[in-house]
Amino acid sequence: MEYKISNRMKDMKGSAIREIFKVAGDPSYISLAGGNPAPELFPSSALAGIAAELLENEPVLSLQYGVTEGYKPLREAIRARLMRIENIGTPDDDVLIVSGGQQAIDLTTKCLINEGDTVIVEEPSFIGALNTFRSYGAKLAGVAMDNEGMKPEDLERAIAENPNAKIIYTIPTFQNPMGVTMTIERRKAVYEIAKKHGLIILEDNPYGELTFDGTKVPTIKSMDTDGVVVYCGSFSKILAPGLRVGFVCGPAALLQKLAVAKQGSDVHTPMLTQLLAHEFMKQYDIDSLIVEMRNLYRHKCQVMLDAIEQYFPAGVTHTTPNGGLFIWCDLGEGVDTQKLAALATERKVVYVPGATFMTDMSKPCSGLRLNFSTMPDARIVEGIRILGEVFHDALKK
Amino acid sequence: MEYKISNRMKDMKGSAIREIFKVAGDPSYISLAGGNPAPELFPSSALAGIAAELLENEPVLSLQYGVTEGYKPLREAIRARLMRIENIGTPDDDVLIVSGGQQAIDLTTKCLINEGDTVIVEEPSFIGALNTFRSYGAKLAGVAMDNEGMKPEDLERAIAENPNAKIIYTIPTFQNPMGVTMTIERRKAVYEIAKKHGLIILEDNPYGELTFDGTKVPTIKSMDTDGVVVYCGSFSKILAPGLRVGFVCGPAALLQKLAVAKQGSDVHTPMLTQLLAHEFMKQYDIDSLIVEMRNLYRHKCQVMLDAIEQYFPAGVTHTTPNGGLFIWCDLGEGVDTQKLAALATERKVVYVPGATFMTDMSKPCSGLRLNFSTMPDARIVEGIRILGEVFHDALKK
Repeated sequence: MEYKISNRMKDMKGSAIREIFKVAGDPSYISLAGGNPAPELFPSSALAGIAAELLENEPVLSLQYGVTEGYKPLREAIRARLMRIENIGTPDDDVLIVSGGQQAIDLTTKCLINEGDTVIVEEPSFIGALNTFRSYGAKLAGVAMDNEGMKPEDLERAIAENPNAKIIYTIPTFQNPMGVTMTIERRKAVYEIAKKHGLIILEDNPYGELTFDGTKVPTIKSMDTDGVVVYCGSFSKILAPGLRVGFVCGPAALLQKLAVAKQGSDVHTPMLTQLLAHEFMKQYDIDSLIVEMRNLYRHKCQVMLDAIEQYFPAGVTHTTPNGGLFIWCDLGEGVDTQKLAALATERKVVYVPGATFMTDMSKPCSGLRLNFSTMPDARIVEGIRILGEVFHDALKK
Repeated sequence: MEYKISNRMKDMKGSAIREIFKVAGDPSYISLAGGNPAPELFPSSALAGIAAELLENEPVLSLQYGVTEGYKPLREAIRARLMRIENIGTPDDDVLIVSGGQQAIDLTTKCLINEGDTVIVEEPSFIGALNTFRSYGAKLAGVAMDNEGMKPEDLERAIAENPNAKIIYTIPTFQNPMGVTMTIERRKAVYEIAKKHGLIILEDNPYGELTFDGTKVPTIKSMDTDGVVVYCGSFSKILAPGLRVGFVCGPAALLQKLAVAKQGSDVHTPMLTQLLAHEFMKQYDIDSLIVEMRNLYRHKCQVMLDAIEQYFPAGVTHTTPNGGLFIWCDLGEGVDTQKLAALATERKVVYVPGATFMTDMSKPCSGLRLNFSTMPDARIVEGIRILGEVFHDALKK
């Protein structure tokens, strides 16, 4: 039988990252490709105790159907924490639990985007979000980035060129893939532009707590007095990604619709994983765990930056993140990092070529993303050394 | 700010069941409304031991990102079990893990349905599925049911009237909401009709194992030599629904697309819940647990049927299920069970009125669904007694 795939899905392919993951699963490869948190910081023993206790003492709560909006005490704990650490949340806002931050993006798109509408995105941006937008038939319009984030004047241009634009998608803090942070001035500008044109800002902030020096630029959501911002957060990078517990904070009027969409998608996020996140926050100090992560990632980032300075050819530029999981490098005009990725893979080092993160993936791209959170220090250095050789050879030609 | 909701979502409301659930959560109500499995059979101690062991001994596997298609050993175990107990699976088929059976419906719809296409459904049918179809802009075409399931001649009519029909959605075994089972002759007929017209059958079988006497009518998927059937199963009714672990077995060529859609929806189903299902099947005898469920539900169904005979007015008809969770009653032409539900709720008994399960929910409906799996025996009898009084009063008028 021949399968007629829907228009929205027929040109969709698995993300390049996903294919790279399959190679990267092989431990003989040095993977600088994924976005995996450092597994040595998973509080697995604490979670083991909590899980056993919950299933023994609260079997019905842990195993029976739950409500779509999420476990109420967890919603309340997240609401309180968002207020405390990010100054987020007005009386008109609500918090929903979702199955990872990805689902917040999915549901928001499903509720706001008609086929042919435009989503405005940073260029480069997170492939998982770009593909979700594409999977609902959205057109993507890229806004140029520099070390201060999305350029407001380019955002204005994108809106002018796309009268059907409905959403501005941004990862303002420790952006994926660039690792850069949008300045407060630009955040204010982006917020005002969105408000003026009646666009929703989808603020994705999975890495915000992973600040190396403890400083934070205020989230766009913290400025939101008009119900313009839908804010996505997640336990993936501050507890464990395999749990798939995320949350969304936004205008209650809109989140009601997201809950209807979620009901049709997976009914509710598993009770056990929600309860693990909730009990961990109750019984342990998640802020201390996050401080450990910050320290580890600051160190690993520095290891990678030092290796880049030592091994990469002069002329390769890189970002210098103040948090998060990623460094972005640029090999200079005319270099196609997709081709070089094949050579690197032959030498058992994998990274994600920059074209993956672009609105038009078919154009050659001289950028690439490196992840520093997953590999041990020595493997980071070795991986960068090998990449340095591959890049030297390529740039000589 | 005013929110412009997408066309596909703007008329969507939370399901009536979901609103009823909110009342039904109050223990002073007798809920015959939900589809909750009997919590006393959750193997919570076994799962507590497994969860603790997994998190202690396999922290990275349990907590790190996993692959979108699902944990491979679980996929293989399900594949083997489907072959053993349902004779399902050809070399062209694949198995994916999904976040509850609901997600299999969601992803299949997303991949096959364009806005304006038609999904053919049994009438009445599962509200969760109907709403998912609606949420992708699908038109619904109902096919009349009797005690032998969907009527093939009415299916032919629906296809003739809807040239854009793409999917036939059916719950052939212990149907939700009617509790009836499609005969083997009709299954064969439905399969041949689908094949002839190039339609996909979405066979939803969450209750199939809950057969009261151990007998089974072969699944439609077991007849599928042409890649026509996408089969959805779930651990919700044979282990625990709060885990949100389901699976889909269908043509690999199509399931590849479903995996791409799933990546954009929730990346992957949580590792811990997948591992719990897998380890439970490895370490314990899930077939014995299912036999316990069958015995309990057979008993509870009989308790409800006896009470219906005793308390309901003559002239109220009901189905006599051979498995599953539901009985369907019909109060006869002209009775609106939605109105009676309000009177029943005042007397602290809740059920789901039949209109909920119809393609056009606005029409009055004389049917209603009763669930027998959740309440203790005495509450079932008491609930039916009260409903009997409400119905007697109504039918007198």
